[in-house]
Amino acid sequence: MEYVRPQIAGMKGYVPGLQPDPGQKYIKLNSNENPYPPSPRVKEVLQRLNYDDLRIYPDPGSMELREKLGKVHGFPASQIICGNGSDDILNIVIRTFASPGDAIGFYEPTFPLYKVLGVIQGVRNMAIRLAEPYDAPPVPPSEVKVFFLANPNSPVGFAYPLSLVRTLAREIKGILVVDEAYVEFAAQNALGLVREFENVVVVRTVSKSYSLAGVRLGYAIGREDFIQEMFKVKDPFNVTRLTQAVVSAALDDQEYFWKNISRVVEVREWFFKEARALGYRIIPSQGNFVFPQPPQKGKGVGFYQALFDRRVLTRHYDEEGLRDGVRMTIGTREDMEMALQAMRDILKAL
Amino acid sequence: MEYVRPQIAGMKGYVPGLQPDPGQKYIKLNSNENPYPPSPRVKEVLQRLNYDDLRIYPDPGSMELREKLGKVHGFPASQIICGNGSDDILNIVIRTFASPGDAIGFYEPTFPLYKVLGVIQGVRNMAIRLAEPYDAPPVPPSEVKVFFLANPNSPVGFAYPLSLVRTLAREIKGILVVDEAYVEFAAQNALGLVREFENVVVVRTVSKSYSLAGVRLGYAIGREDFIQEMFKVKDPFNVTRLTQAVVSAALDDQEYFWKNISRVVEVREWFFKEARALGYRIIPSQGNFVFPQPPQKGKGVGFYQALFDRRVLTRHYDEEGLRDGVRMTIGTREDMEMALQAMRDILKAL
Repeated sequence: MEYVRPQIAGMKGYVPGLQPDPGQKYIKLNSNENPYPPSPRVKEVLQRLNYDDLRIYPDPGSMELREKLGKVHGFPASQIICGNGSDDILNIVIRTFASPGDAIGFYEPTFPLYKVLGVIQGVRNMAIRLAEPYDAPPVPPSEVKVFFLANPNSPVGFAYPLSLVRTLAREIKGILVVDEAYVEFAAQNALGLVREFENVVVVRTVSKSYSLAGVRLGYAIGREDFIQEMFKVKDPFNVTRLTQAVVSAALDDQEYFWKNISRVVEVREWFFKEARALGYRIIPSQGNFVFPQPPQKGKGVGFYQALFDRRVLTRHYDEEGLRDGVRMTIGTREDMEMALQAMRDILKAL
Repeated sequence: MEYVRPQIAGMKGYVPGLQPDPGQKYIKLNSNENPYPPSPRVKEVLQRLNYDDLRIYPDPGSMELREKLGKVHGFPASQIICGNGSDDILNIVIRTFASPGDAIGFYEPTFPLYKVLGVIQGVRNMAIRLAEPYDAPPVPPSEVKVFFLANPNSPVGFAYPLSLVRTLAREIKGILVVDEAYVEFAAQNALGLVREFENVVVVRTVSKSYSLAGVRLGYAIGREDFIQEMFKVKDPFNVTRLTQAVVSAALDDQEYFWKNISRVVEVREWFFKEARALGYRIIPSQGNFVFPQPPQKGKGVGFYQALFDRRVLTRHYDEEGLRDGVRMTIGTREDMEMALQAMRDILKAL
């Protein structure tokens, strides 16, 4: 008897971005991390914590967090569920709403975890290929039980218009998951559609926007009865005490949060113009990253490698529609000046 | 169209123990938490942390932790996987090894999460009823894909002999998961069987033994190729930076760890004798909890309530074989003296 399920044995897992040793001096632009530190309140709360309480289980309902998130977004806590990063939330979503054999869908290229979660769950993955222009992709078959829409999308960074999100919510019979991991850097979001449609679930994370990728906190906002069902599926104590304390402190510092967001957006807009002026193909991004491509086709790997050789760490995807460029996180202004300088040099060498 | 999967809608989720407000003065003996604080090194590491690094994703492989755990247990890191509590590990195990429609098994009563995970995964749950004496339960059908053996068992606290664990490993064709959440308080463990049998996976947690239930760290030790498959199924960044740092520091303090374990075991043995002397039915426990039952049958709920009224918080299970008693965590000597006094009073009133 084989021990391992065939679809697991036959699957390639999700491959996270390279995490170089802190000793290695890279400009780390490969995992869409925020280049600025988290709010100073994070340090304060970790310094004054009652450490003895770590012997006690965390609040399984993450109630304090959900109430604060509710105030920030204008929803009751009962419409919010917290997870160990938005990966945990996506995992909970698929196991709550899609049975083995059902169809789920997503546009491709996108966040590769949707497909991996689909394989593990034993559903039919309906990947709909994207082509430029990106704002009017085909509507998926109505029978999909879950459709994952990363908006803004990764790794290319464009945002779908809300009119498309509305169309999807109307046309599909299942759950429309709007994965807004990057939305704080964008002009629009789909929270209003949670009120307008019964089948819209919005997923968020503090990883990028609050500079807290290391503490793992994602959340979903949706209809109250859906949230209750997702609670049954989540691991009972899925958010640690430390994460609950840290994120709660960070949420209290909305001023710092908005300052950081605007710094990233400002650098992104400046970098976009500069990279385009150098001759790179690059489309406007609504995330905290861009997807530059050298003027010549077929140079993506060489571009990645040349950046790497200059200590600029980005991500290359060996996948249709992505091979010609790299995904590059927006770092500090200083980081991006160095990246630009490298891109200037590389253009001559490619 | 129904949005929610029928087996989720029809399921009762796992119900965690009550977490009273810190302001309420209960003796909290309901969640098998360690009554002593974690190692002082936990405080140290959280005080001197580079908080700015929280903006960066954690090591997806938890490598430092796995190497330290490997040294503690005598296994290479490649045979270890870390999770967000052992709940996460159990979740990963079932999704790696059991396909919808397959059978999984466990003795009952036991940790109720196995059944919940089985329902979510769409497998057939084969629950084998336990009866006293507990040391020779029937062997499950050989076709089970995963068999969960909580050893020591909860909520009653006895340990199955290693000879039974060996028999199970030999007789079942699937994976034998030995869930050793409480094993540090016991006389024997199954780590040696990971070397002896290819299908044994041992699951551990730092929740009880290291007084770290609040930080969520569980792990599995098994065959290297199984661990690799489980890596594909786990959420990519399932253990936070803070948890990795805290547990790493706690593992360095083995002296404190053993001192704490022996304090709990000492109080347990003393309490066991005292409770029995009062007339309570109680079987020897190998965990950090006991399962006392008043002399008269059918008094379990009243016993629970009478303890509650005296500010002693325990757990009552409305389930066959468990109704007559309560699960009571071993607290400090002082906690247990107060619990004993309450039990003395209650005997007269029941």
